[in-house]
Amino acid sequence: MSKPLIVVTNDDGITSKGIRVLIEEMEKIGEVFVVAPDSPNSGMGHAITVDSTIHIKKSPIFGDIQSYECSGTPADCVKLAKHELLKGKTIDLVVSGINHGNNASISVIYSGTMSAAIEGAIEGIPAVGFSLNDFRYDADFEHTRPFIQKIVKEVLAKGLPKHVALNVNFPAVSDKPLAGIKVTRQTNGYWKEEFDSRKDPHGRPYFWMGGAFVNREPESMDNDIAQLDQNFVTVVPCKYDLTDYEALETIMKWDLN
Amino acid sequence: MSKPLIVVTNDDGITSKGIRVLIEEMEKIGEVFVVAPDSPNSGMGHAITVDSTIHIKKSPIFGDIQSYECSGTPADCVKLAKHELLKGKTIDLVVSGINHGNNASISVIYSGTMSAAIEGAIEGIPAVGFSLNDFRYDADFEHTRPFIQKIVKEVLAKGLPKHVALNVNFPAVSDKPLAGIKVTRQTNGYWKEEFDSRKDPHGRPYFWMGGAFVNREPESMDNDIAQLDQNFVTVVPCKYDLTDYEALETIMKWDLN
Repeated sequence: MSKPLIVVTNDDGITSKGIRVLIEEMEKIGEVFVVAPDSPNSGMGHAITVDSTIHIKKSPIFGDIQSYECSGTPADCVKLAKHELLKGKTIDLVVSGINHGNNASISVIYSGTMSAAIEGAIEGIPAVGFSLNDFRYDADFEHTRPFIQKIVKEVLAKGLPKHVALNVNFPAVSDKPLAGIKVTRQTNGYWKEEFDSRKDPHGRPYFWMGGAFVNREPESMDNDIAQLDQNFVTVVPCKYDLTDYEALETIMKWDLN
Repeated sequence: MSKPLIVVTNDDGITSKGIRVLIEEMEKIGEVFVVAPDSPNSGMGHAITVDSTIHIKKSPIFGDIQSYECSGTPADCVKLAKHELLKGKTIDLVVSGINHGNNASISVIYSGTMSAAIEGAIEGIPAVGFSLNDFRYDADFEHTRPFIQKIVKEVLAKGLPKHVALNVNFPAVSDKPLAGIKVTRQTNGYWKEEFDSRKDPHGRPYFWMGGAFVNREPESMDNDIAQLDQNFVTVVPCKYDLTDYEALETIMKWDLN
């Protein structure tokens, strides 16, 4: 049996530490093909490049592994791999990350890491986004390795339900070993922004976005934030059908015609 | 009773025709506050500006209406309105659009227009994104006006279910009058990309993204694409909990520990 073809991308850019760890782990499992942004794309959400050009360059940084750096977004990288660079080949898996910083709860919406995984799902390719709850550039990823192996091997063995991408988050390293893996749901929460308002040298206003995460269900335990706090690796299956079927029933009864 | 406070934004930029029509319609209903991107943001998905500064400038183009042009994304505009420019005030409604081009089916994921509406929903504000199935800069929006009135008045009267944003799409103008409003679901489909591959003057490759929409359920009628084709205005309630609860049941049975 031939080795599975695995596309690796991320949103922190091709030179980040997290993608190197992910590539090393994927090399143990399959044939690795890298297309990753040439610069950081954090907070890119599901952006794609429709009004300008996309540039790619072969990258030597991973030695013999076929690698491209790309001027586009994480979602662009997956589209480019599927429809251009690997055209006609079957991609068995898309993995994205490991992100420096967690993508639990509402962060999944803003996440470039997860947009790449969801783009894989849209294309019908099994896909997993990995994120670590530590945003430092030199964060320690060693404790994530056996869990990445476990999850990816299970995905390849069982297959994912059609058009589902997994959102995997790891606790930061600590004295305690990780408690295990929990399959769970997205926490209801939001970022309460605090804008740091400044003036430029010409007296014109500008802002830095900052803020704090607010958990709307701090008492619940069956969600990704609560389980991360308990030192579990969390796995949330995500879909791209945004329809709220419950609200649909309600709104169908409105007087709109 | 005081007039409702309505924040208007879009993704085509503050000078586009679509936002002007939307502002004119909102002026009939409430107090209008505009914060819109200073340049086109199509395909921005749910991007936010976390690694650079956000700049705003008062805009005179809508006369007496308080208006700001913003260097950020559509989602940035909503965050800035809520947490900085209108801090402490109650925003009754966020509307986004009218987008030049439809945002039905999977386009909701890539849409800057809808990211602004969903950002409103995340903040707990009723929100509606409007899009027209005509991407031309001088598209005709006149036939959309009575339907915008109908939908927004119903949203303000009934309230939206918590954390839901409406994705409203209008057919392009034609000989036939619009058939009415249909509340429906997101069509399962994707964009099959065709990259136009070129060489720059130095011989280096670059790409333009292009492609065609593929409907994965062309026989179904109960979805936004099918109803748009029947000349209906479509309304899809969208949520931001991406958890696939069906897949959750399946994956919980995996051997992960």
